[in-house]
Amino acid sequence: MPPFAPLPAGLPQTVPFIGPETLERRRGTPFAARLGANESAFGPSPLAARAMREAVGGIWKYGDAPSHDLTHALAGHLGVTPAHVMVGEGIDGLLGTLVRLMVAPGDAVATSDGAYPTFNYHVTGFGGVLHKVPYRGDTEDPQALLDRAHQTGARLIYLANPDNPMGSWHKGTVIRAMLDDLPPDCLLVLDEAYAEFAPADAIPQIDADDPRVIRMRTFSKAYGLAGARIGYAIGAPDLIAGFDRIRNHFGVNRIAQAGALAALADPGWLAHVVASVAAARDQIGRIGAANGLTALPSATNFVALDTHRDGAFARALVAALQARDVFIRMPGTAPLDRCIRISCAPDAELEVLAEALPAALGEAASSS
Amino acid sequence: MPPFAPLPAGLPQTVPFIGPETLERRRGTPFAARLGANESAFGPSPLAARAMREAVGGIWKYGDAPSHDLTHALAGHLGVTPAHVMVGEGIDGLLGTLVRLMVAPGDAVATSDGAYPTFNYHVTGFGGVLHKVPYRGDTEDPQALLDRAHQTGARLIYLANPDNPMGSWHKGTVIRAMLDDLPPDCLLVLDEAYAEFAPADAIPQIDADDPRVIRMRTFSKAYGLAGARIGYAIGAPDLIAGFDRIRNHFGVNRIAQAGALAALADPGWLAHVVASVAAARDQIGRIGAANGLTALPSATNFVALDTHRDGAFARALVAALQARDVFIRMPGTAPLDRCIRISCAPDAELEVLAEALPAALGEAASSS
Repeated sequence: MPPFAPLPAGLPQTVPFIGPETLERRRGTPFAARLGANESAFGPSPLAARAMREAVGGIWKYGDAPSHDLTHALAGHLGVTPAHVMVGEGIDGLLGTLVRLMVAPGDAVATSDGAYPTFNYHVTGFGGVLHKVPYRGDTEDPQALLDRAHQTGARLIYLANPDNPMGSWHKGTVIRAMLDDLPPDCLLVLDEAYAEFAPADAIPQIDADDPRVIRMRTFSKAYGLAGARIGYAIGAPDLIAGFDRIRNHFGVNRIAQAGALAALADPGWLAHVVASVAAARDQIGRIGAANGLTALPSATNFVALDTHRDGAFARALVAALQARDVFIRMPGTAPLDRCIRISCAPDAELEVLAEALPAALGEAASSS
Repeated sequence: MPPFAPLPAGLPQTVPFIGPETLERRRGTPFAARLGANESAFGPSPLAARAMREAVGGIWKYGDAPSHDLTHALAGHLGVTPAHVMVGEGIDGLLGTLVRLMVAPGDAVATSDGAYPTFNYHVTGFGGVLHKVPYRGDTEDPQALLDRAHQTGARLIYLANPDNPMGSWHKGTVIRAMLDDLPPDCLLVLDEAYAEFAPADAIPQIDADDPRVIRMRTFSKAYGLAGARIGYAIGAPDLIAGFDRIRNHFGVNRIAQAGALAALADPGWLAHVVASVAAARDQIGRIGAANGLTALPSATNFVALDTHRDGAFARALVAALQARDVFIRMPGTAPLDRCIRISCAPDAELEVLAEALPAALGEAASSS
């Protein structure tokens, strides 16, 4: 076989996450509660669903390469110009394009140990060198990220606010202050996938023309369109324009464009989801507390439950819950991995969790 | 602004194609006939459309990363194993991943002058060096491609069979014979986007385990799902597995997965489309002939009409047709650019073309 290019030849065959369908095929049975991927089981706006069904009639046409209507609607929604917005195939796709745009082989990139694996996958995939700093307690540590970026000459700092997998958050003023301490030639990648669930003061006030930061948002979480693969980046126009040098111009699904546009125009549904998620967070906390687990504060659509044990126990608990038809995930590294991570969902699915948890805890205790 | 990495810093801000919606916004009016992107205005299978509408209900879930069900269905359809098939975000997306997998900066790649611009965009975008050979008449020239690949040590040869933009094709035996003359370490990228429209003997018989070739197929053309962004590669398992090192694992839209699966299961609709396309090719030929233009033989869902003039005339004709609400495209380089390229479509749209063509030809003759 003709050999791969040297960079991919040195990469492992990997996947950042094992999806629930893959697990179901391995198990041979479907999950009764899908609480592991921070999807929104509350679903998209009915208006978005209708728009998507109607868009099926035009699916024989390629999508609009600049996602013009959605880009303009987002600009209006955000109070920026269309030149500040780039629509792409979800944050995963946008992160890949951004890493390719900014990181040459051997370049340093700073992130937190336990933060988003797919970002790491892209950095490694383009030959970047990851430098990871520990969380500080259960939050990402802005000062440690900045320090490491200075030490290594990092081209990117990745920070999710609110954070995944812990659900924690910083005030926007903390994020905003990071910009003044960035090393030269370093861009802050601010992943705001969960922004819609966060307190208002967690969202930093940043001039849209500020070239030191790019923000990533998505329709996969609060808008309930994870399977549509559509998200957007917000940044200075010269940075945003850079995406056009390398992106897959016709890569966004036409139905996704229609669904996102309609979802954005239904703030009432968004408010309903945000309220439902808040209620579900409380319910997950109660379920955890009834079983000796402590919910960490969350500004997202999931809750990290502290098992007060170690990673081996939490891994056994995840397996025991999966064996009881409950799909969840957990942080990948210590000490975060003392927790399990439960996505918010309607009551019926949380009830499945509540019923499975006592026996799963017992099994985990005896096996770990 | 933090600078781009050196490779993208040297790239132009570009787009391989200007989409029809962009042109419509510039014009201020919609096209009456959309005949420029080789989409299928005959639409997808009604079963696929229904499957997509039904899939909207599950759009809150991420898609299945390995596209398991579709991959297995394709394997059965093709008589290969699932390990020979990689589903991705259309051929455009798959080509980008393949180039990244095989081409290091500075590596040579051979293609034809006037062949698919998006492939060239990916090669340039990953730092590859394009070496273009002329068409031989109106077909791509296998021997010239092989010769150039040997001269340059090319890692990839790109060849579309049937060809876009000319609609021409080689017999499968010609393509098959190329494999034995490839340089060492060179992979043949066989773009079969239009395979479903081609004579059976244009599709080469190649052992699925042959590591010297990768074939690209799509649901965008005959299956009428261009906006869904879903296609697949067929190749030796070790090559196909390489995609998992770098691809965006959760990048395929969930509705697209459902639509493609249902489309594949409706061979009757495919036969209907193929027959409708054949009739439309004939009709485009008649419309051309009535206006002094000669249809080139086509094994695709479009027809290249020879204007018997030069590129300046053809460009003026494309502009004159667009001004009359007919969206078409044309080859980009001489001598292919003496032709205009018309996508097959239902009679009503071709009638718009027939009505616009005489005056457009007159305008082009007076302006070029």
